[in-house]
Amino acid sequence: MAAQTVASTPDAATSANPSASTLSAASTGSVDLGPAAALSCRECGHRVPLGPVFACEECFGPLEVAYDFSAYDTEELRARIEAGPANIWRYAPLLPVPADVADKPNINPGWTRLVKAENLARELGVDPGRLFVKDDSGNPTHSFKDRVVAQAIEAARAFGFTTLSCSSTGNLAGAVGAAAARAGFRSCVFIPHDLEQGKIVMAAVYGGELVGIEGNYDDVNRFCSELIGDPAGEGWGFVNVNLRPYYAEGSKTLAYEICEQLGWQLPDQLVVPIASGSQLTKVDKGLRELIELGLVEDKPYKIFGAQAEGCSPVSVAYKAGHDVVRPQKPNTIAKSLAIGNPADGPYVLDIARRTGGAVEDVNDEQVVDAIKLLARTEGIFAETAGGVTVGVAKKLIENGLLDPTLTTVVLNTGDGLKTLDAVAGTGLTATIRPSLDSFREAGLA
Amino acid sequence: MAAQTVASTPDAATSANPSASTLSAASTGSVDLGPAAALSCRECGHRVPLGPVFACEECFGPLEVAYDFSAYDTEELRARIEAGPANIWRYAPLLPVPADVADKPNINPGWTRLVKAENLARELGVDPGRLFVKDDSGNPTHSFKDRVVAQAIEAARAFGFTTLSCSSTGNLAGAVGAAAARAGFRSCVFIPHDLEQGKIVMAAVYGGELVGIEGNYDDVNRFCSELIGDPAGEGWGFVNVNLRPYYAEGSKTLAYEICEQLGWQLPDQLVVPIASGSQLTKVDKGLRELIELGLVEDKPYKIFGAQAEGCSPVSVAYKAGHDVVRPQKPNTIAKSLAIGNPADGPYVLDIARRTGGAVEDVNDEQVVDAIKLLARTEGIFAETAGGVTVGVAKKLIENGLLDPTLTTVVLNTGDGLKTLDAVAGTGLTATIRPSLDSFREAGLA
Repeated sequence: MAAQTVASTPDAATSANPSASTLSAASTGSVDLGPAAALSCRECGHRVPLGPVFACEECFGPLEVAYDFSAYDTEELRARIEAGPANIWRYAPLLPVPADVADKPNINPGWTRLVKAENLARELGVDPGRLFVKDDSGNPTHSFKDRVVAQAIEAARAFGFTTLSCSSTGNLAGAVGAAAARAGFRSCVFIPHDLEQGKIVMAAVYGGELVGIEGNYDDVNRFCSELIGDPAGEGWGFVNVNLRPYYAEGSKTLAYEICEQLGWQLPDQLVVPIASGSQLTKVDKGLRELIELGLVEDKPYKIFGAQAEGCSPVSVAYKAGHDVVRPQKPNTIAKSLAIGNPADGPYVLDIARRTGGAVEDVNDEQVVDAIKLLARTEGIFAETAGGVTVGVAKKLIENGLLDPTLTTVVLNTGDGLKTLDAVAGTGLTATIRPSLDSFREAGLA
Repeated sequence: MAAQTVASTPDAATSANPSASTLSAASTGSVDLGPAAALSCRECGHRVPLGPVFACEECFGPLEVAYDFSAYDTEELRARIEAGPANIWRYAPLLPVPADVADKPNINPGWTRLVKAENLARELGVDPGRLFVKDDSGNPTHSFKDRVVAQAIEAARAFGFTTLSCSSTGNLAGAVGAAAARAGFRSCVFIPHDLEQGKIVMAAVYGGELVGIEGNYDDVNRFCSELIGDPAGEGWGFVNVNLRPYYAEGSKTLAYEICEQLGWQLPDQLVVPIASGSQLTKVDKGLRELIELGLVEDKPYKIFGAQAEGCSPVSVAYKAGHDVVRPQKPNTIAKSLAIGNPADGPYVLDIARRTGGAVEDVNDEQVVDAIKLLARTEGIFAETAGGVTVGVAKKLIENGLLDPTLTTVVLNTGDGLKTLDAVAGTGLTATIRPSLDSFREAGLA
């Protein structure tokens, strides 16, 4: 593992930038986050040492993790990955985590099924051997959020944080609660106080603090921003705020797994959901890294973004040919994608255009139909976000934007058990008395 | 894969025995179920060819799959398993499935996490390096039922069935619906008509027929038995009735995975839930096979059975020193274990006594406490059955029956999202206004 030590950054704790107040709780020792070399601004390229910061001190652009992969030999790296554990830590050499990450208490998500979806392909009229669903409902708390939170946990550990926090309306609350419990962090998660009881239970069961805020999700977010700047927030790692650069990297593992599971091949086309847009940009980043590292052949791929019509700011901008995204007030059953002002929207537009993909949306009825379609063809019960990607894939095939003869991967990022209400109309096909006569009368024989 | 062909049984379709009426839909060709050589009576040892039968024609004892493993070389077999897919089909050489099973459309469960439960161990006062939770909530429909249904699917295919069926009150309905959809079978699942709406949705979403029976679960079962004997049931594979010998073998994979994940070592102690008792007997069978095949060192292990007090017929019989199990009327929140007259109860008693284990039970309050304990220590949200095993493990440690210094594996066989009602009392720790003052007043800083 010697190749990783070049990237350790003993000066991380000396960073000074707009968010540095949150650094006060960080360890004063060296920060070992494996191959992560620095944070780099996506707008101006300015680099700062690794630390719990998220905005560029020069231009306020978003920071992302920059790596030093220069010491890697392609075939040695491939062999090391293939010999690794059946979770995201097989890709530790490509992530902002220490080399011994697999030995630390973490929830260990990933290495979820890539399902060859022959039945679905036949219904959609595409090549049955080349359509795949990446089913992330198999993660520990049954959504892709486990991937990103697992990264945030390791960054929090490196920076000496003792409390893990986030604002959430669902999946993230459970993922943070579970991961913090296992990793030995205190957790304090903020949610709107009037959330459905089922969602509260799913987050509260892990025993962390779960605080209801009298207000809507925007109020919760505003409060969290205040808390980060206040002494009361010292020692707190907000997974999607001051730990966001590390957290977001977790989505790269979706790209790595898809390529490895395809036999170290790039897919030709991917359909990825858009909430903040971070996942889509990191899937693209992961694919480009695999090309640069020589782990897959360099060839074109197209990334398609999927939104619900009731929260489609990126899709609207894409279709209008705009470079900026106009915020919307969300109104859709796909609540885990309902971010009206997606931070990474402009990057998503750029990737869709650069790769020759597109951004498309489907309405709530199409979302429900797609959930049922995936369930009855492949036995995968997706949450509404999965209904969005499958529905968009269907629409893209119908309007000719998705080539039915090429290898296509559709992401399902969550579990239907968490959004049962969306298919609440589904029910018994018949009710009979316990007799063969009644069975025959119902036409079931 | 040549070693497996010795076990093919071209005469399977000529079997004649008490349940042979269900055979009418079976293929008249040869039956290739890999190393499965015959069905063998657990009571009298009488052997019959492979077929969709479950009761001995001589003594009406239960039939189970007998194998021919004679051609296997230990190290070749180990290498073949380790090179296999990250699901139960890595163990295809030890299961009643054809050698090419991984190429067929199946839901591909298994290879779920074995979690080293250090936090839980510390709370329970046992060696933190030697307590593990086998977390089967990571399966496609989030319960161990996916393992057994996946086997039943392959048997159904081999016997030429076109409809897959079962009676169920929960987990099994979803597992059958999903697996049938993916594998291209019609499914028709029978449930009590007044089941909770959430459970109906979880089973109905896969698009198969879901029939409510006006009556309780016993009425549903009686109706299914009638249907199997009727021409209307021709071509129907009832996963836990006429396919039961194959179905039950799926639980062996829990034993295989645990040992392989421990580095091809037997655990010293296992805590396994008891519903019908089938799972526990097959876990024992799996462990014994690994010993016989030389894949693990031959040393003693103890199997502990876990029940809920409100449905504890095996525990009561164990404690009374009885060999027979007196049926109970279930009354517990652990509904997936609520079988009052467990078919394999006597075999469970025999295994617990032979291995030096025990059978213990916990009440519903202890079940809920154990669900919360597992969630807050390891971030695993178990269904009530997992609360039973963790609760029983705690009790066995307290009463000295479980050695805290030995390697122990506790099974969690299902997902908390399916039994949210059990922890419905869990809620917000505080409700505050969106302000730092309110945050401080609540004592959260």
